[in-house]
Amino acid sequence: MKFATVKIGSASKVVIVEEQGKVLLLQDAAEKMKMEVPNTLLACISEGEEFLNKASAIQHWAAHTDNQTGLYSEEGSFDWESPIPRPVKNIFCVGKNYADHAIEMGSEADIPEHVMLFSKATTSVIGHGTPIPNHEEVTNQLDYEGELAVVIGKTGKAIQKEHALDYVFGYTIVNDITARDLQARHKQFLLGKSLDGSCPIGPYIVEKSEIENPNQLGIETKVNGESRQKSNTKQFIFPIEEIIEVLSKGMTLEPGDIIATGTPAGVGKGFKPPRFLTKGDCIEITIDKIGTLKNSIH
Amino acid sequence: MKFATVKIGSASKVVIVEEQGKVLLLQDAAEKMKMEVPNTLLACISEGEEFLNKASAIQHWAAHTDNQTGLYSEEGSFDWESPIPRPVKNIFCVGKNYADHAIEMGSEADIPEHVMLFSKATTSVIGHGTPIPNHEEVTNQLDYEGELAVVIGKTGKAIQKEHALDYVFGYTIVNDITARDLQARHKQFLLGKSLDGSCPIGPYIVEKSEIENPNQLGIETKVNGESRQKSNTKQFIFPIEEIIEVLSKGMTLEPGDIIATGTPAGVGKGFKPPRFLTKGDCIEITIDKIGTLKNSIH
Repeated sequence: MKFATVKIGSASKVVIVEEQGKVLLLQDAAEKMKMEVPNTLLACISEGEEFLNKASAIQHWAAHTDNQTGLYSEEGSFDWESPIPRPVKNIFCVGKNYADHAIEMGSEADIPEHVMLFSKATTSVIGHGTPIPNHEEVTNQLDYEGELAVVIGKTGKAIQKEHALDYVFGYTIVNDITARDLQARHKQFLLGKSLDGSCPIGPYIVEKSEIENPNQLGIETKVNGESRQKSNTKQFIFPIEEIIEVLSKGMTLEPGDIIATGTPAGVGKGFKPPRFLTKGDCIEITIDKIGTLKNSIH
Repeated sequence: MKFATVKIGSASKVVIVEEQGKVLLLQDAAEKMKMEVPNTLLACISEGEEFLNKASAIQHWAAHTDNQTGLYSEEGSFDWESPIPRPVKNIFCVGKNYADHAIEMGSEADIPEHVMLFSKATTSVIGHGTPIPNHEEVTNQLDYEGELAVVIGKTGKAIQKEHALDYVFGYTIVNDITARDLQARHKQFLLGKSLDGSCPIGPYIVEKSEIENPNQLGIETKVNGESRQKSNTKQFIFPIEEIIEVLSKGMTLEPGDIIATGTPAGVGKGFKPPRFLTKGDCIEITIDKIGTLKNSIH
């Protein structure tokens, strides 16, 4: 299943994404079935298996009930939010997890020996389709980074590689929008990575069971239709299991934690001369078995 | 006023700290007055002036009422939590904001030209008196950093220096516990700064009006009674107003955001040979007009 959060009128709703942008309104359907599901996808995820079982039952019931009125909504009648509109802590991000990107940002010496981790402030999160502010008053080096993101499903600490995927709820896409000038000027990455609206996430979270091997997914970023990044997560320097092991060694991971796994070569800064984002640019990130996250610069 | 969150039995309570560790139970007192205050200090802070007025009225009433039964609690009958036990985003931290500390960590070349910002995960937050795990399974270079912390009181973006303190609710103390080996190994600071229990905060937040100039406060860190760090916030490279201006340029600050302002010289790593923390060590950080934050390594 694919889970999303959408805005219909002023209400945020948890939905299951069906084919062609049609979505099943989970709470509305549950109500008709006299079942209870939490109000936010974050709370749903925290329920673990129990939630997945309920969601599956609701989906089955809705598909077969005689009266589907009010159960589904069609694309165009809602806005996408980030699946988790307001994560409970900053987004974890892995830096330089593809060798070709490490090299384009500097040289072979920049290929990390250990997982490099920084964060993006929760206030930077926006959904699929939401405009990204151009922030021309603070940066003239706005850049894109297409990334596979892992969503944690249950609390864990000192998780070993072999069990790491047990702690995953699913996968989504992150555009790790970066102000390169701020990133360089302030040394640590936080500020250049945390501008408002600089963390598009979505459109939805694909349940783990639908992706056999997250370390083998094609990933492509297009800007205004032109392919800029094209790689495969098999190029990861640190596969997802290792990232989770390293992160959780002394730090507890929690349901709803989001880990962006790094970006391949082809970011704007990697071009000579650099090709930074400007007003009107449209960025589309497509990952196999997940979908496409699309946002434009406003 | 000084505001804290304490644990009495299994309940978290917002309190006003009076003299000698005696605390006024704000919600209990409010209830008797038929007033309403929010259940968490974070929510109280978000109410702004309105909360301060209510708190002041409650404090006055409680001090003069004939029946004070159940209104106050004495030190020893409660545990301190972090004033904000679970911040809504990572703790913002300024790196190398005292020249002497930048030099002890490297050389004069390490004195930053621009504010350096990183974060600590929300899961690292603990209260005054709570043991800090030694994390001997992941680090043998655990270090202390005594710091003045700013608590934001209202939402703001692109805040100018001149108005920066209008956005402050108050001040507290942070011990920015750091695993130096992880900090160095993973390049970006997040991981070495985010071990569980590595962010003691408190004991309480001192309301802004009680501190005339936050950029002129004596600060001292003792380990097992021995003075290790002794400085004054007038040594800040970037004063609080500038930190807030830089942070908020493209990122919205929110009520309850916590900004640790950096640490002076005298951390364990600065000694030759280094003097890292081990089990049983007791760290006390005292800041003028605020108080003392004390935690031991477990």
